[in-house]
Amino acid sequence: MNILIYGIGGTMGRILYDCLKEEKELKAVCGVDKLLKENTFDIPVYSSCKDIATEKPNCIIDFSMHECVYDYLPYATENKIPCVIATTGFNETEQEFINNASKLIPIFQTGNMSLGVNLMLKLVKEASLMLGDKADIEIIEMHHNKKVDSPSGTALMLGNAVKSALANKTDFVCGRKGIVGKRTKNEIGIHSIRGGSIVGKHEVMFIMDNEIITVTHESQSKTIFALGSINAAKFLVKQQNGIYDMNDLLNDSI
Amino acid sequence: MNILIYGIGGTMGRILYDCLKEEKELKAVCGVDKLLKENTFDIPVYSSCKDIATEKPNCIIDFSMHECVYDYLPYATENKIPCVIATTGFNETEQEFINNASKLIPIFQTGNMSLGVNLMLKLVKEASLMLGDKADIEIIEMHHNKKVDSPSGTALMLGNAVKSALANKTDFVCGRKGIVGKRTKNEIGIHSIRGGSIVGKHEVMFIMDNEIITVTHESQSKTIFALGSINAAKFLVKQQNGIYDMNDLLNDSI
Amino acid sequence: MNILIYGIGGTMGRILYDCLKEEKELKAVCGVDKLLKENTFDIPVYSSCKDIATEKPNCIIDFSMHECVYDYLPYATENKIPCVIATTGFNETEQEFINNASKLIPIFQTGNMSLGVNLMLKLVKEASLMLGDKADIEIIEMHHNKKVDSPSGTALMLGNAVKSALANKTDFVCGRKGIVGKRTKNEIGIHSIRGGSIVGKHEVMFIMDNEIITVTHESQSKTIFALGSINAAKFLVKQQNGIYDMNDLLNDSI
Amino acid sequence: MNILIYGIGGTMGRILYDCLKEEKELKAVCGVDKLLKENTFDIPVYSSCKDIATEKPNCIIDFSMHECVYDYLPYATENKIPCVIATTGFNETEQEFINNASKLIPIFQTGNMSLGVNLMLKLVKEASLMLGDKADIEIIEMHHNKKVDSPSGTALMLGNAVKSALANKTDFVCGRKGIVGKRTKNEIGIHSIRGGSIVGKHEVMFIMDNEIITVTHESQSKTIFALGSINAAKFLVKQQNGIYDMNDLLNDSI
Repeated sequence: MNILIYGIGGTMGRILYDCLKEEKELKAVCGVDKLLKENTFDIPVYSSCKDIATEKPNCIIDFSMHECVYDYLPYATENKIPCVIATTGFNETEQEFINNASKLIPIFQTGNMSLGVNLMLKLVKEASLMLGDKADIEIIEMHHNKKVDSPSGTALMLGNAVKSALANKTDFVCGRKGIVGKRTKNEIGIHSIRGGSIVGKHEVMFIMDNEIITVTHESQSKTIFALGSINAAKFLVKQQNGIYDMNDLLNDSI
Repeated sequence: MNILIYGIGGTMGRILYDCLKEEKELKAVCGVDKLLKENTFDIPVYSSCKDIATEKPNCIIDFSMHECVYDYLPYATENKIPCVIATTGFNETEQEFINNASKLIPIFQTGNMSLGVNLMLKLVKEASLMLGDKADIEIIEMHHNKKVDSPSGTALMLGNAVKSALANKTDFVCGRKGIVGKRTKNEIGIHSIRGGSIVGKHEVMFIMDNEIITVTHESQSKTIFALGSINAAKFLVKQQNGIYDMNDLLNDSI
Repeated sequence: MNILIYGIGGTMGRILYDCLKEEKELKAVCGVDKLLKENTFDIPVYSSCKDIATEKPNCIIDFSMHECVYDYLPYATENKIPCVIATTGFNETEQEFINNASKLIPIFQTGNMSLGVNLMLKLVKEASLMLGDKADIEIIEMHHNKKVDSPSGTALMLGNAVKSALANKTDFVCGRKGIVGKRTKNEIGIHSIRGGSIVGKHEVMFIMDNEIITVTHESQSKTIFALGSINAAKFLVKQQNGIYDMNDLLNDSI
Repeated sequence: MNILIYGIGGTMGRILYDCLKEEKELKAVCGVDKLLKENTFDIPVYSSCKDIATEKPNCIIDFSMHECVYDYLPYATENKIPCVIATTGFNETEQEFINNASKLIPIFQTGNMSLGVNLMLKLVKEASLMLGDKADIEIIEMHHNKKVDSPSGTALMLGNAVKSALANKTDFVCGRKGIVGKRTKNEIGIHSIRGGSIVGKHEVMFIMDNEIITVTHESQSKTIFALGSINAAKFLVKQQNGIYDMNDLLNDSI
């Protein structure tokens, strides 16, 4: 299967390029990156899908910026090419553009490409449902010292998974300082540790009287996101038109 | 609701007695313990169910020894009293005796009375199913320095949950020493840490390339087993004849 | 050795009373507690040291309130009785009162009676000195959901141990939320997790590029503070007049 | 400063080569590797020190095999070049050869090049001395699923650090299975977890009654060993003849 890497010049694009070298079934045939200055890859890189010469990709994997959907989705729908979207941060218009495209081609879209994080989301939702009000829920996330935003997007996904399961968990509490009083049942604590070169660790604690359940996910390398997109591509090319996410992929593997 | 504590003189029987003091809906009306020398409780304690005078328990909770089923089950079936069995180690004849009794009364039976451990079992089974061969699975359990057997019964329950989900995970490996060679896919590592006064901690690691999912349960006090039996009693008295376990209780709470 | 328990009616006073029952060398001879309503202990309890009848304590252990120094220190200096002070929160006048008393009797004073926490303080100071600017330092502390103040006193002791070792670590950061920018070198993160019945856990992370050192202390029961005071008493009665802390005790044990 | 990389074709040699690209003060001038088939580096690589042409290294860093000391030490002593030895597994004759060479040049030798692991060794030794018989000591180490030997060399270094501090800790127990009886005071538990692509994690637990102190080190990348050797080289070129290890480097940094 031939892959077009959209955003090949970025960190994740380069990691995906390297990962595809190790793959048997898939290979990169070309890249698109309007910001790339010098092509050091051994495949053609274009500045727009409009410029693609002779390559015939079977799937597009996008690790670029949200606004790029306007470049690759028209090309994909016209040529019937499934798209794996690993980019986030879409505004409503862009999301609707994606939704409309999914009527013409299969699209895979997720906020986190890691298999592990998506499994964690399922486990956290299930534990929340079962433990209900018995547990105080606290989330700890760790990332490198160059990350500028807190909490991480994945920590928020986890917090929202809890909220969606338990109506009374309404408040994200991002740090405690001073005489804040006893913990209330509607708090979800979220704590952002920053330091060194930590790739990413997320921990959800269900703290009860005299027992604690903890679900933890640790990323040791960004390659897991590239490999997640490769698994998504393998899954997606067998699907009908529509929009898919990691739950579909996880359920498929049972 | 009136509770009969079977095995009231043992460690767990005493903890259950103390926990019932704090309960509103339930109270202990009498105990049975054939080994108790002096009754320091403020309720009658008999040496057999045959001796029970005027008390009318609505539920029996058993934290005694496996052979005691022959004393309390006849009494329970005759008087239509539901039984929560927190004892383990039954032989086949005893288990059949329990199964037969469950045709006449509701019986709750589980290998571990903690809500958390039972939720953990569900999460571990689910994660095993989803990750399949992608993960190397290792179990770490910690207990106090007086525990004589390894691995713990709960660690074995967790290992068997993995085995039941994944046919190719066949070998429990309890320690590694020397040049043992590369890890094989059919191993489930089980590591028993012993020290101090640790009540009980169990950790199941799903170790993949570049990411790790971990599910952990920590007991901080044995009261969780008493409270689990109280929850089971509340659930059981509303059920029809039959045999129930923690899964039924967990599903009931959703 | 005969112990006077000052503050015998409080949580820690009662735990100390129970722990002394298990001791061979030490026993409680009397208690003082001006708030105690009914004496359920099997030793005399007075409302002030002035009322002590015939008992001759060899050591006073204080788990009461800071202002009580004005009651027991005059009694202790007059009768040459060493004092273990496990209370905190003294104002300057009270501390000077203690310092003056230490010229006449041996006094042991510490902010945390646990052997483990004090060892942790030493290890954290040493690691800070060695790693210097190479590490980003973050502290995580966990306590039960009824604790009203954050961070814990022990977390602040740990943070101050880091500050005393490294001049450029100046800012305690108790939570991160929003676009806070890259982590700076002068931050010490302190994160307060609250939930269930956690007795107390403290973790100091030294996060470097590609490696992390963590020192963790976990309390499983408040008895460790009572046992710490008992060890301090055994140590103190062998010392000359002066003021001693956990460092002296730790160094003595080598 | 010019570095000769001995064993440049191996995993660690290549990582060191990459790390030196980022350095300002140091640069690689040549490599030696008798097994290298094709030189893809941008510096000369020789099959023996005897073949070195015009390069004048100021320091040799060795990540090869133990027997290579017979090739580079004669060259180093003749040309007065300090040597950082990151290789392990020397037999007695080789070690004596190293010791003799250290009379003529400064030599840095260590079993683990990571700053963090060496700090951990110091902390573990200190905690062992202080806690003495109060603690049950257990070591947990984690590595990838291709590691063939257990326990890891670093876990053994940690275990030996405990033994050197506490005379009665005599037995390494690498796994527990069956009815093994109560834990004895002279055991040091060592547990080897294997899975996925874990680079290396070591944890030493000091488990007491009701409290636990844990010291943990986690490697996230093998670059820490290359960077450790670079720091050692910077330290070593300022020293007199003699043999140095990580303790000297750690003490130098205070």
